[in-house]
Amino acid sequence: METLTHIGKSVERIDAFSKAAGEVNYGADFRLQGMLYVKVLRSPHPHARLRRVDTSRAARVPGVRLVVTGADFSYTFGSHIKDEPVLARDRVRFAGEGVAAVCAVDEQTAEEAVELIEVEYEPLAAVLNWRDALAEGAPLVHEDAASYQRISWIRPASGTNLAYHFKLRRGDVQRGFADSFRIFEHEFTTDMMQHAPIEPHGAVAQADLRGHVTVWTPTQSPWEIRSTLMEALELPPGKVRVIGLPVGGAFGSKIYTRLEPLLGALALRLPGRSLKFLHTREEEFTSAVVRQPTWSRIRTGVDSEGRILARQIESYWDGGAYSDCTPNVCRNGGYQGSGPYVIPNCHVDAYAVYSNNPVAGALRGYGVPEAAWAYESQMDIIAHEMGIDPLEIRLRNALDVGTATVTGEIITGSIGLKETLRQAAQGIGWDQPKPPPTVPGRLRGRGLACIYKQSRAPSTSQAFVKLHEDGGVEILSSSIEFGQGSHTVFAMIAAEVLGLPVENVTLANPDTDFTPFDRSTSSSRTTFHMGNAIRLAAEDIKSQIVAMASEVFEAPPELIEFRDGQVHVPTRPPMALKQVVTRYFGADASVVGRGTFGIRDAQPTDPETGQSARAAAFWMYATQAVDLEIDPETGQVEILNVCAAHDVGRIINPMNCVQQIEGALAMGIGSALTERMELRGGKVLNPGFVDYRILTAADMGAKVDSRLIEAPHPEGPFGAKGIGEPGLAATAAAVGNAIFDATGVRMNAIPLLPERIQRDLRSARGNGT
Amino acid sequence: METLTHIGKSVERIDAFSKAAGEVNYGADFRLQGMLYVKVLRSPHPHARLRRVDTSRAARVPGVRLVVTGADFSYTFGSHIKDEPVLARDRVRFAGEGVAAVCAVDEQTAEEAVELIEVEYEPLAAVLNWRDALAEGAPLVHEDAASYQRISWIRPASGTNLAYHFKLRRGDVQRGFADSFRIFEHEFTTDMMQHAPIEPHGAVAQADLRGHVTVWTPTQSPWEIRSTLMEALELPPGKVRVIGLPVGGAFGSKIYTRLEPLLGALALRLPGRSLKFLHTREEEFTSAVVRQPTWSRIRTGVDSEGRILARQIESYWDGGAYSDCTPNVCRNGGYQGSGPYVIPNCHVDAYAVYSNNPVAGALRGYGVPEAAWAYESQMDIIAHEMGIDPLEIRLRNALDVGTATVTGEIITGSIGLKETLRQAAQGIGWDQPKPPPTVPGRLRGRGLACIYKQSRAPSTSQAFVKLHEDGGVEILSSSIEFGQGSHTVFAMIAAEVLGLPVENVTLANPDTDFTPFDRSTSSSRTTFHMGNAIRLAAEDIKSQIVAMASEVFEAPPELIEFRDGQVHVPTRPPMALKQVVTRYFGADASVVGRGTFGIRDAQPTDPETGQSARAAAFWMYATQAVDLEIDPETGQVEILNVCAAHDVGRIINPMNCVQQIEGALAMGIGSALTERMELRGGKVLNPGFVDYRILTAADMGAKVDSRLIEAPHPEGPFGAKGIGEPGLAATAAAVGNAIFDATGVRMNAIPLLPERIQRDLRSARGNGT
Repeated sequence: METLTHIGKSVERIDAFSKAAGEVNYGADFRLQGMLYVKVLRSPHPHARLRRVDTSRAARVPGVRLVVTGADFSYTFGSHIKDEPVLARDRVRFAGEGVAAVCAVDEQTAEEAVELIEVEYEPLAAVLNWRDALAEGAPLVHEDAASYQRISWIRPASGTNLAYHFKLRRGDVQRGFADSFRIFEHEFTTDMMQHAPIEPHGAVAQADLRGHVTVWTPTQSPWEIRSTLMEALELPPGKVRVIGLPVGGAFGSKIYTRLEPLLGALALRLPGRSLKFLHTREEEFTSAVVRQPTWSRIRTGVDSEGRILARQIESYWDGGAYSDCTPNVCRNGGYQGSGPYVIPNCHVDAYAVYSNNPVAGALRGYGVPEAAWAYESQMDIIAHEMGIDPLEIRLRNALDVGTATVTGEIITGSIGLKETLRQAAQGIGWDQPKPPPTVPGRLRGRGLACIYKQSRAPSTSQAFVKLHEDGGVEILSSSIEFGQGSHTVFAMIAAEVLGLPVENVTLANPDTDFTPFDRSTSSSRTTFHMGNAIRLAAEDIKSQIVAMASEVFEAPPELIEFRDGQVHVPTRPPMALKQVVTRYFGADASVVGRGTFGIRDAQPTDPETGQSARAAAFWMYATQAVDLEIDPETGQVEILNVCAAHDVGRIINPMNCVQQIEGALAMGIGSALTERMELRGGKVLNPGFVDYRILTAADMGAKVDSRLIEAPHPEGPFGAKGIGEPGLAATAAAVGNAIFDATGVRMNAIPLLPERIQRDLRSARGNGT
Repeated sequence: METLTHIGKSVERIDAFSKAAGEVNYGADFRLQGMLYVKVLRSPHPHARLRRVDTSRAARVPGVRLVVTGADFSYTFGSHIKDEPVLARDRVRFAGEGVAAVCAVDEQTAEEAVELIEVEYEPLAAVLNWRDALAEGAPLVHEDAASYQRISWIRPASGTNLAYHFKLRRGDVQRGFADSFRIFEHEFTTDMMQHAPIEPHGAVAQADLRGHVTVWTPTQSPWEIRSTLMEALELPPGKVRVIGLPVGGAFGSKIYTRLEPLLGALALRLPGRSLKFLHTREEEFTSAVVRQPTWSRIRTGVDSEGRILARQIESYWDGGAYSDCTPNVCRNGGYQGSGPYVIPNCHVDAYAVYSNNPVAGALRGYGVPEAAWAYESQMDIIAHEMGIDPLEIRLRNALDVGTATVTGEIITGSIGLKETLRQAAQGIGWDQPKPPPTVPGRLRGRGLACIYKQSRAPSTSQAFVKLHEDGGVEILSSSIEFGQGSHTVFAMIAAEVLGLPVENVTLANPDTDFTPFDRSTSSSRTTFHMGNAIRLAAEDIKSQIVAMASEVFEAPPELIEFRDGQVHVPTRPPMALKQVVTRYFGADASVVGRGTFGIRDAQPTDPETGQSARAAAFWMYATQAVDLEIDPETGQVEILNVCAAHDVGRIINPMNCVQQIEGALAMGIGSALTERMELRGGKVLNPGFVDYRILTAADMGAKVDSRLIEAPHPEGPFGAKGIGEPGLAATAAAVGNAIFDATGVRMNAIPLLPERIQRDLRSARGNGT
């Protein structure tokens, strides 16, 4: 193995100081001189016809510059299906949908004006869950969703609320069940969840007289915003510039356009003015995006030793009123929904459904946490029912090199899954007797769950790297640093290749005018894809310097070595890189490098069979094991120990990996125990942090043991893979399994709120005693 | 010659609409939210000791955030000699030097506070011209200029006001004079001139808690500002980011740092706040930069046919109180000061001098317009005295392929000088009898003058180019578009290489965090250097696409052709570039290219002899011919016709070349006829546009015939050279020669103000009649 200077060492995050010092100007903080403010009037009805929208009083408020309604714009947008108007036209499809918007000189004036807009609604019958939505004769959320522009693989069914149907067909599932020793069938649900970023969605936009729109937005995907905005606003190429602002939390909610199309449309009406639109916390809950509530039935046949012979899954994903990326969430949940196991016969039907609920979108690891709640709960049930140790049954079924996934991909190279299982179990003392509860009266339990998760493919990332004339290095990439530490990883990679200190490297902010293309900061893809692009760009610099040094030293290139920011040639004194460049040109110059990386042999899953020789850029594998206590009277759960073992390919920055796991784990515990959006009649009842409980630092009392399993990926930069999402995915099932271990009662719905636990325990006692 | 699509066609400037529509936010207009404003108290004395500076009353004004004096900072700055404090310490060296500065919440408060600062000056004897400055026992502007940090080739003489002495020694000048048929000796002067940009100097700066300074400034040289600022503020590499704002006129005055070091120093004292400092028009005259007043004596020996055998020049360049780039102006004026002629024996001494005048710096073509005024006036005198046609004497002496410049550089490749002489002369009917005056009582005259001008070398330019996934092209360069049209030239070059429409290309603003290194937008170097860097970056893209297409089409690279934004392969339907990329990656991607260009074999002139085998990146050649009338009573001159013939290498955008020539010509006429800074006792008497007269559009009544001579440069992009400066350089001498032709009276000082002309004509009549 090559000798590395920085890779594998814990390096303090390069953005740590400025963030800790409060110097970072997040999207929500961003202001321009003379800015106007936008406020939106939102529907209180989940489904209603708009009979009259009268903005005349609002328009007369001093300080108001523009009042618009849906009737003013024919624009629609959508990353997957172009189904969402910038403001409701004719009818509203969810409670929280924008009906009219005001631009005014300040927020207060805009709010006052919004209150003066008169709307006459004619309420319509609403569908508020997937079952009602798919019922015969259900009211249609979209009259003809099949007529919308969309990505080719999505085929909404005319005359229904079905947005997309994912199919996976592998082997002969009926035969598999017929051959099975036992068959298990269970149903699981996950409730609606919110991303709850501390910074709500917001953006600033400005247009010029020729319709060139600039948008400043704390997005995860400047290029995604750029292209969907060009499409939404019907602008020719090059007319949209997206400047990525520091993101104050996103978790997937800021991958796709939400408020940018409306803001852009307003900016085009007020050329030369900058307009800011920032969600209130309430709007963030009602009108940004949520995680799809899901329902799934999972049927598994095993042989006498617990080996899976067949698995059939039916799942429903309630995407709300507009599709956003729900079809893809459904697809992801579909083809990754049977677990990291060898399953010779598999049959999956996953359905994305329109309803009159808030719009659902991408949440960290989308598709996988919901699916893992089901398949890892059932795996535990099977283990207990078959009398097999839950660790053992997973090891027995786990994917390994040479085996195939349910999508037909043969695992090659390396896989750390089994090692994550062993390590996570060992980390909570799985092979030791269960310790007694720490508090009398409580019950103690242990559980584990493993997952696999792909990173999207094909997709590309590109980077420029500059070695400045002063010896500094600057990286230009469109990847977003939103707390995950990837900027530090990038700096380490560039510094490693160029033989320079990490401190020499700085990173520019994403800006589609300046930084090159990047698909998105999502899907745990960034270290792998952009890390590679930066590595290639730095290699490009290196090869240029070698050529220069070869001429300056009159030495063959193969004798030239990079070390400690210097070029070394035998028998000559070393020369600083920048000096080589100055000597070569006889003048100051930078060296400019470029790199592009994409997994080119990846193929989307086949629409009829869900098969693909390579569906992923890479696969991540993780196991989380939980040791907890539960108070059977109150239903309160306290997590004592977590061991999270993750196959990270190759560790770039161990501290950073651990921080990523811990952060995702906290979110996973929230999703498992506390986070639930409550709706009644389509309206969100808890749109704020008092009633919607995310974990605070004080709530994270668990001792966390993060173990990093190295199974270098042959295509990863230095072997590295991603680590952003899997920390969330396995948590809920591990918690559920530990609760079963503690109580003997199996729960099938997350979040595992105390009142639900109480109810299930009471009901079990009622039945059992 | 290759077939070209865009090169050579007149393309409308890509920045024309936004500038005409008033959408461009120039440096002067730039504002940030919550900005503070800086005002400076300036010395009324050209030389004085500071006995007391009391800021206590100013500091108590409500709204004042900071008041500083020179005592608060030990920083000094200077691009060539680090001789200038950010605020005067102990003593002031020119009237207009900053003594104290105030930062306040608005400009008015800052002004009020400035007026409350009490300063006790002890006036000192001042030196107000080069002659006094070099006199024995003259007061010293700097006590020991030799002790300052400086560029190595500059050697201030200790104990004098001499900042730099340029020497050129070629052949044996005494022998040349001894061999001459006749010897001519004349003295010429040029007065102090101002750049007079419509936008004064101004900038905004902000620092963070770790001393990272960001400066927004309408500069010609983001990288120059960056490095001199790092040096001035004693910051480590990478701690300065310079964002280039749209420049509202510069003409050389915005190449080097002026107010940025003070602003940066203030920003470091107020981390987190942004500070704006914008010169008033008066400050722009007193405290920005001016063109050095010069005095020169030129002695020329010719043979009986008017061929130059020897030339000796002594010139003095009054750089004012701080050196800025005056040593280099002096050097340029020194080695390019003998004209575009074959001169076997040449001896030049040029002296850069400190005085207590305002700071002088770079003005369009620096060194050459001043020198050309002298050598082309004398060339005319020689012609008349020898009875040789002024055109003929120039053709007889002109440089040509195979001849050597006085710096010892052999002209190779191509040179359009003689053709410019013939064309310019022909353009004003040189071979026709002189027409009568258009107004009775006026005198009509014709004159011509030719020049050569180098473009600085060695120097480098670098570019990134992105071919976006939507088919658009974006260029990242640090070159400045300040009206010269180079952004359009860049777009044409990229479009030409990539076979796309020019409209597809956009350009990002300079920003040292994003755009790669560029020496400076100066010295007419941009089309040549950055044009080449962009060409190389586009070629880099092209070769990547060829490789991709080769794989996509399974065809050998040599069969792949770029045309009309498509890739053509025999027997296949053409494919759009972006489609090739998408097909190759199976996903959206840009293609990223990079290019670096520098003339690597250039060498600075030798400090003892002024010789260099290649002192220039390239040489520009131009002749201007003027047909004018003069009212002998009022001294008023009206220019009727100008023919400007320029060797541009290869024409990229003819309309743009013509606009460049016309703009420079207007400035040249201003320098010849109206623009003069009047000083008394070191104080500027006419610091504003009422009393300092620049030409307006209405004043430019002359009919201008611009002729573009193509003599392709082997290293230029498509053969192109620069065109920014030479249009100014020859004008004054051509005007002076035409006035001589009209009146028979030779004038030796520009500007040729009506009162000077009246005086000279009266004096000639007095002497002659």
